[in-house]
Formats: sequence, C-alpha cells, structure tokens
Amino acid sequence: MKKLEKITPQNENFAKWFTDVIQNGDLMAYGASKGSIIFKPLSFGIWDNIRKVLDEKFKSNEVQNVYLPLLIPESLLQKEKDHLQGFNPELATVTEVGGKKLTEKYFIRPTSETLFGDFFKNEVESHNDLPLILNQWANVMRWEKTTNPFLRTREFLWQEGHTIHSIEKEAVVFTKQMLQVYYEFVTEYLAIPVISGEKTPKEKFSGAEFTFTIEAMMKDGKALQSATSHYLGQNFTKVFDVKFKNKNNEFEHPYGTSWGTSTRLLGAIIMTHGDDRGIIVPPKIAPIQIDIIEILANKNPKVHEFGLYLKERLSQIFSVNLDTSMKSPGFKAANSEIHGTPLRIEVGPLDVEQNQVTFVRRDTLEKFVVNIEDVLFEAKKTLENIQNNLYTSALNRLKQNFVIATNYESFKEAIAQNKWVVTNFACNIEDEIKIKEETGASSRCIPFELGFIDTKKLKGKCFFTNKKTDTIVIFARAY
Amino acid sequence: MKKLEKITPQNENFAKWFTDVIQNGDLMAYGASKGSIIFKPLSFGIWDNIRKVLDEKFKSNEVQNVYLPLLIPESLLQKEKDHLQGFNPELATVTEVGGKKLTEKYFIRPTSETLFGDFFKNEVESHNDLPLILNQWANVMRWEKTTNPFLRTREFLWQEGHTIHSIEKEAVVFTKQMLQVYYEFVTEYLAIPVISGEKTPKEKFSGAEFTFTIEAMMKDGKALQSATSHYLGQNFTKVFDVKFKNKNNEFEHPYGTSWGTSTRLLGAIIMTHGDDRGIIVPPKIAPIQIDIIEILANKNPKVHEFGLYLKERLSQIFSVNLDTSMKSPGFKAANSEIHGTPLRIEVGPLDVEQNQVTFVRRDTLEKFVVNIEDVLFEAKKTLENIQNNLYTSALNRLKQNFVIATNYESFKEAIAQNKWVVTNFACNIEDEIKIKEETGASSRCIPFELGFIDTKKLKGKCFFTNKKTDTIVIFARAY
Repeated sequence: MKKLEKITPQNENFAKWFTDVIQNGDLMAYGASKGSIIFKPLSFGIWDNIRKVLDEKFKSNEVQNVYLPLLIPESLLQKEKDHLQGFNPELATVTEVGGKKLTEKYFIRPTSETLFGDFFKNEVESHNDLPLILNQWANVMRWEKTTNPFLRTREFLWQEGHTIHSIEKEAVVFTKQMLQVYYEFVTEYLAIPVISGEKTPKEKFSGAEFTFTIEAMMKDGKALQSATSHYLGQNFTKVFDVKFKNKNNEFEHPYGTSWGTSTRLLGAIIMTHGDDRGIIVPPKIAPIQIDIIEILANKNPKVHEFGLYLKERLSQIFSVNLDTSMKSPGFKAANSEIHGTPLRIEVGPLDVEQNQVTFVRRDTLEKFVVNIEDVLFEAKKTLENIQNNLYTSALNRLKQNFVIATNYESFKEAIAQNKWVVTNFACNIEDEIKIKEETGASSRCIPFELGFIDTKKLKGKCFFTNKKTDTIVIFARAY
Repeated sequence: MKKLEKITPQNENFAKWFTDVIQNGDLMAYGASKGSIIFKPLSFGIWDNIRKVLDEKFKSNEVQNVYLPLLIPESLLQKEKDHLQGFNPELATVTEVGGKKLTEKYFIRPTSETLFGDFFKNEVESHNDLPLILNQWANVMRWEKTTNPFLRTREFLWQEGHTIHSIEKEAVVFTKQMLQVYYEFVTEYLAIPVISGEKTPKEKFSGAEFTFTIEAMMKDGKALQSATSHYLGQNFTKVFDVKFKNKNNEFEHPYGTSWGTSTRLLGAIIMTHGDDRGIIVPPKIAPIQIDIIEILANKNPKVHEFGLYLKERLSQIFSVNLDTSMKSPGFKAANSEIHGTPLRIEVGPLDVEQNQVTFVRRDTLEKFVVNIEDVLFEAKKTLENIQNNLYTSALNRLKQNFVIATNYESFKEAIAQNKWVVTNFACNIEDEIKIKEETGASSRCIPFELGFIDTKKLKGKCFFTNKKTDTIVIFARAY
C-alpha cells in the first residue's frame, strides 16, 4: 500500500501540483518507454465512461464504428504532402521484423486520414453509397520531444471520425455538427466550459480546408484544445482517387471531414476542477460516484450492517464503493478525497442510532447530516449540485480571465499574466510564428461568439501589424 | 453500392467460401499493409458486443481495466528468455523516428507480460496490496508469414488479463476461473461448443507454467483455439523483481496469471454457424437482431406506416433495422441473409390488411406468419430458438467428428479426414513436432473431461512411441 504524499499547492507550483495529483491519485504510472504512461483503473475508468457516452452521441448522429490498421506504409502517407510534412518529424517507424530489414517502412499511425482515404476508394461507386460516416477508437503515436502525462504523451488513446459526403455543404454542416457534439459533451458531462471557434491558417490541421475547435481554460490560465473537427474538402479524396457517380452521372470526388478527441481530456478534467487535495471527478463521468466510509465498525457491528444496507440501496442508481479494508476512517477519507470521488458518505455508531448519515462534498468539503429515509434523493441532488458547481466555478474563472488588447505591448503584458487575449489579428502565418516565439502564446481560435466580452472595444486593426482587419482572434499560452 | 456476388459452396472449397462470405457480408476489407484487415461496421459491431459482455463478466470477477503502452523497449523484452524466444521472429521493430535512428529499439507488443511485470514491480509492497487483477483491451502485433482474415492477421484486437496473487493456490484457481468465464461466454453468447483442457508442453504459452484452453471445431473439422488462460507461476515476477512482504514479514515473489481472447472469435463465429448464403450471427451477440423489409411500400403507404410501427415496437427490446432504401424487397432479403441477421420480418399489403407479418429465420430459412399482437413475444421466442438451434447443431457436429486412435496409422487416417483424434500420448515435445510435420495435426489439449467419448477404448500406451501413458490428448488440424 502506497503512502499518501503531500501535494504541492496549486499556487506554489502548478506543474508540480499536477504531477503530485496524478501520482498520488493513482491516475497513472510512467511506462517503460520514455514519454509513455500507464492508465491505471481510475483514469482508464474515466476514459471508458467518456467513450461510452460519446459513442452513444455518435450513434445518434448515424456514426458507425470500424477499426483500421495501426501501420501506414510509407508510400501511402507520402501521397498527401502537407499532411506528411505536418507529421513527419514525429513518425515512429517500423523498419525491421525479427532482426530482418523490411523492404518498405511502416509508420505507426499519427492519425488515419490516409488509411481511410485508401479504404474509401473501394467502398464508393454512386451517390447512393454516400454519406459514409465512420469512427474508430484507437491508439495513435506522435513522437513528441517534451512530454507530459495525459497532456502530451507519445502514444495516446482517442477516437477519430472520418466521413465522406456527396454534397459539399452537407460535409461542412457535418463538421460543425460534430463540434457541437463535443461542445455539449464536454460542458454537460465533464463540466468544462469551452470556447468554440475556427483555427487560424497556422493552427489548422495539416491537410484540412479549415478546422473547428473547442478550447478550455485550465486553472493556471493556460488553454487546452479539447476536441477538433476538420473540413477536409476534396484534399484526401482527390489524392486517393475516391470518386462516385453523382446524380448527373458524372464522376466527382466526395467531400470529407474528420474529427477527434483524446485522453488529453483527462488532463483537462484534472486541471479544470482539481484542488490542493487532488483531482475532483465530475459526478456524471466518475467511475465511483460515492465512497461509503464506516467509523468504529470494529467496535459496533451495526455500523457495518448499516454500511452494507446503504451500499445496496445506493447501488440501485449510483456507482458506489464501500471501503472495508482495515485502514483508519481518517485514512479512508483522505484516500477518497485524493481520488476525487464526488461524494463521501460517513456512517458511525451515533449515525446508526439516529438513523442518519453524514454527507461530505468533495468540491466544497461541506459536511451535512442526512436522514436515512432521504438518502437516495439527497445523494441525487447533491451529485447534481456538485456537477453544476464545478461547471459554474470554471465558467466564472474563464470569464474573468479574458483581456482585450489592441497593441503588442498590452498583448505581451496580458500573456505574461496567463490571460486569454481577445484581439484583432490579420492571421498571417509568419507573424503568428514570431508571436509564439516572442511570447509563448499561440492563437486558440477565431471564436464563433463571445457573449461575455465587449468586443466593441476592438478597433478593426491587427494588433501586430496595424493592418485593417475585423477578424477577432483569441491568443493564450497552451498545453 | 456493391453487387452481391455468388458465394462458393462450403463443400466445394471451404477456404474460398470463407473469403467469399467475409467480403460479400461486408465484414472486412484488406488493409493497405500486407496481412492487415479493416474491421467494417458489422464485424466491429460484433466485436464491440463481445467486449461489452465479457467486460461485465470480468467486472463481476473483480477485474479492473487499465491501459499499458504499445511499445516494449528491447531491454525489457529480453529479460524473460523463453518468452522472447517464443515471439522474437514475429516482432515488428521501431528503429527510427522521422528518419533518425533511435538509440534503443522498441518492439510493438505481441503481448504484454513484460510490461505488466515491469509495472507490478512498483505497485506492490505488502500482501495487503494483493491480488492485483487487471485487464486491458488493446491491439497487438505478430508478424505472421501466412495470414488469413480474422484468423491470423499481423495486427489483431484482444483483451489480455494480468494478475498477481500472494498465494500460489489462489493464482491457480483464478487461472481456471477465467477459463470458465470464457467457456460460459463462448457457449452461451456465441453458441459455439468448446472443449476445455490443458495444453501440452509443446503448445503452452512461452513463459507459462501451464496453459488452459478452450478449443472450437469449425465446419470443415479444423480446430480453432478460442481463448487461453495461463498460470505463470513466479516466472515473470522473479525476472522483474516484483515482491511483497508476506504475513511472516518475508519477501516473496507473487504468483501470476494471464488470459486472453481475440478477434479470432469472429472467424470462429463465421466458420461455426455460416452456410452457403453467408454468415449467421448468433442473436445474443448480433449488432442487428431483426431486419424489417417492406414489400410494395411504394404502392401502398400503409405498408411503410406498418413498418415504422413495427420498428418502434420491436426496438423496445431488440436491435432493429428498417431498410428504407429504394432497392427491391428481393435484394433486401438477400442482403439481410448475407449479413447474417438472425431474424427477418417481411410486411406487405396483404399483411397490413390481415394485421400480420411474416417471420423468416436465418438459420433454418423457415417462414411463418405471426399476428401483430404476438410480434414481441414471437420475436423473443424465435431469437431464443435460433440461438439454441445454432448451439445444438454445432454441438452435434462436434460430437460426431471425434475418433479414437491407438496407433499412428489410424491416427493419420483420421487426421486426413479432418477428424479430431482422441488418443494416449506421452507429450514428448520432439515427437509432437514430428507429428505436426508429417500429418499437419497439432495437439489441441489434454481435455478436462470428455463425457461423450468412450475413452475406455484407449490402451494406456502412447500412440506414437508405444510408451506407457494414461495422458489423453486431442489432436486435430487447426487454424
């Protein structure tokens, strides 16, 4: 049994806090190969719940699951040049088997647009075969130089959706529709407020016409791209010669989309909701929603009877754990907190006598007594309150951390304070590279709407070049 | 839209039949890299259902899911020599990234005993930390020379369970317990009868003390190993220096197990139940259990109303598809058959008038009329009958295809007829290699029991060496 170690306070050292939380909270262990991690039961349980809920949402959008191979032959990835260039330095390459050199190299997929392109080629003949709306849950690999558990690991788990459509407009609409699925999922289930928008040319996906994104704000002010949806146009279908006979009986290349989210979401959950005691798992996605802890059960057998009864009753609706180990109640409570279980219910001899239990909320640490008659109802209400409170707190933080800047000086000042900067920007790629080098900030998105910011203060001029532009861009440092 | 092509009859050419069925039934497409396949929605849907049901069964055996990395550093895999030797020729090896050579090679996992061993080392201190009962759903790679869709592909999907226990006996019991989980799942859900037993020393897992297996019989008489459960003893825990303080406060290496099943099960389903019209998916695991087909719906709008009503009603309990495309009812019926949907319900103008529908069973092709009042009840009963009939037919075939042999002549004769041979065998490894070379047959298992075979006819002498032995071994050609 591991001891619980002290967690570095957030405002002392946020990066150290993050590492302490994920290790103490049994979320991960470092893998044997550099930049890899092991998802332990708690983090994998959260990911599994994310998968279940998203998969249901995908299915109500007519998405079907498939599975394509891990390896991409070199010749296949070379077909789309922009795409290859975007990923090339990070490609893990299989060159030999059992000590013998292969005649062709294979890349471990960093993403699968090329594999889907090659697959679609043989699946489509006429407009009646379209749309094809597919998705896969898979592992991918990008050999990053600097890694960070959950946020940037060489291998990660994700889902990648790939669709082709006979009508351009339908594909564009679908690109937005899937972003909306992510938006609703992340806000409702993960209690993470996000800003939706379009990526600038510099930040869009290699090989896409345009990229939509949802961006979340971590407690240290840094941004975390939480999901993206790309409109690919005919980029991949032309290259892979995917074509169909349209209604005029002419050959046409279909219009593609791809969209994905990954185990980075675990990082987003931790850094949006966690506090100095550890992770807080939003109730709607928690593998364990309620921990029951017995006090002085060894001295009073009725306490354990009561604990068992409580577990049985609550398990009808919730996912419940009754810790029956020999550890002290204090240790169990600390253990429950550090693992982020949203609700803890304590029961001791006095509670048994008075037919009551004590609720402890993980988010506010508030304690209150609940009559045993009301336990189901109160648990439901409390978990809902926790979910709402997590979302509202994060939303307030988000709103308060926005700043408007109209020139580079005020921009730099705001970025240095880890603010999100709303500004006019002409979206020149070279300029954006320079800004990143000089300030560490990257453009997060061209927001679809920003209700809570008075953008009338912007002057219609690029903060960096002073050129006339009405494009509103959000900049921030990002994970 | 692909045309439906003729399927080669099973008794004309079983291998060609298999290829025809999986291609026409939209089960797979060949991947871009040799020996890889694409799981299309039907096959992935079956696998997804397998995952869901097995995962529930695992959880009721206290199993927790985790996820470990794809890549194994060369130094790690080298630690267990037998294990390395067993997999070495098939190891896909990453040697470079972005064109640059790595300082250490990485193997794509062929299985993860070494990764779990390395992980366990830091997870265990005392006997209170044990048992650790973990599982992962993952892709693995074994670079096979000859490949066959679903049956032997270079990459495949599987689950691999890995446990460590403080007590040797507990680990042995758990090894058996997990085989029993597979046995119950495969017989109940996949309707595939199997023989349970222990592998001979030649066929056991590289690095295990012993291996339990369940073996299924395909329609051509060949065997298919459907799941295995290995008792690893202290083999990996010693090598990886995993140790705990036992109750006497002494350090001890824990006792390990591992167990898995894979997408080979899809091959087993196809070759156990399929007929000359294609795959038959057992109702309990079918992504679509019922296809509704409307007849003359364009001439009578009430037919479609009826179809919609039927779909809504049946969807309360079953997974239902209503094919509303413009194709002919004949095409739709053939399409339903080729995709193996267990039950087809046809509704035409006459049916609407008489408040009835026509049921068509996929297994027996039997047609019968059902009153609309009884449709839920009859669908439930019919799907149960199909599930039972698939199992019973397969079990009868299995029983009839066993032969007892007491010498090498009768052994060879039976194997040449694709029978399963029950015999006494002394389990010498070199002898077994020779038998495989000369006859193509391998030992399947030392069965736990064989109720339907009169093993009293065996003479207690090895059929190959004539040495005295009471060990009963089943031999067969296998996939």
